[in-house]
Amino acid sequence: MDYNKLRNLIFEKKNFLCVGLDPDFQKIPEHLKMLPFAQFEFCKKIIDSVAPFCVAFKTNTAFFEEQGSNGWISLEKTIKYLNENYPSHFTIADAKRGDIGNTAEAYAKTFLQNMNFDSVTVAPYMGSDSILPFLKYNNKWAIVLALTSNKSADDFETKQLVNNATNFEEVINFTTKLGTNKNLMFVVGATRADDLKKIRSIIPNHFLLVPGVGAQGGSLADVVKEAWNKDCGLLVNSSRSIIFASNSIHFNKVAAVEASKLAMEMSNFF
Amino acid sequence: MDYNKLRNLIFEKKNFLCVGLDPDFQKIPEHLKMLPFAQFEFCKKIIDSVAPFCVAFKTNTAFFEEQGSNGWISLEKTIKYLNENYPSHFTIADAKRGDIGNTAEAYAKTFLQNMNFDSVTVAPYMGSDSILPFLKYNNKWAIVLALTSNKSADDFETKQLVNNATNFEEVINFTTKLGTNKNLMFVVGATRADDLKKIRSIIPNHFLLVPGVGAQGGSLADVVKEAWNKDCGLLVNSSRSIIFASNSIHFNKVAAVEASKLAMEMSNFF
Repeated sequence: MDYNKLRNLIFEKKNFLCVGLDPDFQKIPEHLKMLPFAQFEFCKKIIDSVAPFCVAFKTNTAFFEEQGSNGWISLEKTIKYLNENYPSHFTIADAKRGDIGNTAEAYAKTFLQNMNFDSVTVAPYMGSDSILPFLKYNNKWAIVLALTSNKSADDFETKQLVNNATNFEEVINFTTKLGTNKNLMFVVGATRADDLKKIRSIIPNHFLLVPGVGAQGGSLADVVKEAWNKDCGLLVNSSRSIIFASNSIHFNKVAAVEASKLAMEMSNFF
Repeated sequence: MDYNKLRNLIFEKKNFLCVGLDPDFQKIPEHLKMLPFAQFEFCKKIIDSVAPFCVAFKTNTAFFEEQGSNGWISLEKTIKYLNENYPSHFTIADAKRGDIGNTAEAYAKTFLQNMNFDSVTVAPYMGSDSILPFLKYNNKWAIVLALTSNKSADDFETKQLVNNATNFEEVINFTTKLGTNKNLMFVVGATRADDLKKIRSIIPNHFLLVPGVGAQGGSLADVVKEAWNKDCGLLVNSSRSIIFASNSIHFNKVAAVEASKLAMEMSNFF
């Protein structure tokens, strides 16, 4: 999906919600667990229910991998289902891959070509070699970790370099030179409003993928206040508070209610 | 595998070679490509041929993932084959996973419990939250990226912080507080002999996983000179120069010859 299509989708729908598909097997409703591809069945029902209330879906590869090859098949079925039935939704493989050379090429091919996700989350530690292979695909995106919402982000990401930049600013500085705001986004946690403001001043035109609203304590209003740009420039992710809002047989309807609440709140910002 | 067992294995065998299983589908011999699990068949033949000449095997998840769920099954078959037939070899899932909270827990469970690898490579960018979940398993290891062998390591890893440490030193500093030399190793590229020496002075007692010897230009003698410790403390990896030394029907025999050359060179250091 290209930049304009994403931007227009957001403005037509007055919505910038990304629903995170984290199908932790322990937490999916009991009545689905006996099905051959339980994680896919769970994701499918969530997708069908919440699609009207979001513009993007993010699949977390860890929970699929935890179920072995069966989980990997569920991941393949989930992205295929999304591409066939919801081509207007933006898709993210939240894989946080980070390697170099032909290994990085293989990861990029896996997610962007073979599975046809719109984007992959990428770890920047090893430098540009880790990021460039993901920028070779037309209308695809690398979403690079900058400042995350977890407490131990302070172990490393916020450390200050002798050039006065923090590590997360340095990541943004060298990464933005590799691509454009048409193929690069950054992960910035919602729990750090001051830093969101600072990051927006460095990259006024890039989309930010923002986790940490809701369960992790970030405020949607603060995120919008500090990081909204003329094209919205935000994809705000919510996972557990939507998909695991209930584990009853009506879990998907409860998920839709939770997503619709966020959608309603978001529509007020347009 | 615990520290003493690994140490004894190395000294009994007079060998610290890790063979990297990177089954790039394009590069595996034609006569194997038609088999249902071609990557597993390739790895199996390589393993059987080179096992006498190494102490460890490292599977690169990227190349399995590139073949979709079929590749993931090959990965599962490969580690099962290793655990059943070569329990005395140390195993590494070279996955470079890096995430937080229950996502990191899921990755750790996938590789260390479900697949029963001895170790996983881990990216440190998000701080201790990314590493701690991998340290909860008895006799298992997290192998944390410190200084890698690629050129763009200078984009980020070697940048200097205001506390005078470089980023890779900072990673070592905060990571060593989370575990011990019995459950933590670090990735340090062979192409930077000066830095190897510096790292060895910071962590005299930790094992280092060293890629970059051979194809990438690092010298085995330099690595040994700068980073050998009383327990050897080294696992030197070689992948392509062994496993793709030939793509003929005798590829596995040629691989064994290449591994045996390195093994011979290594034995001289004991």
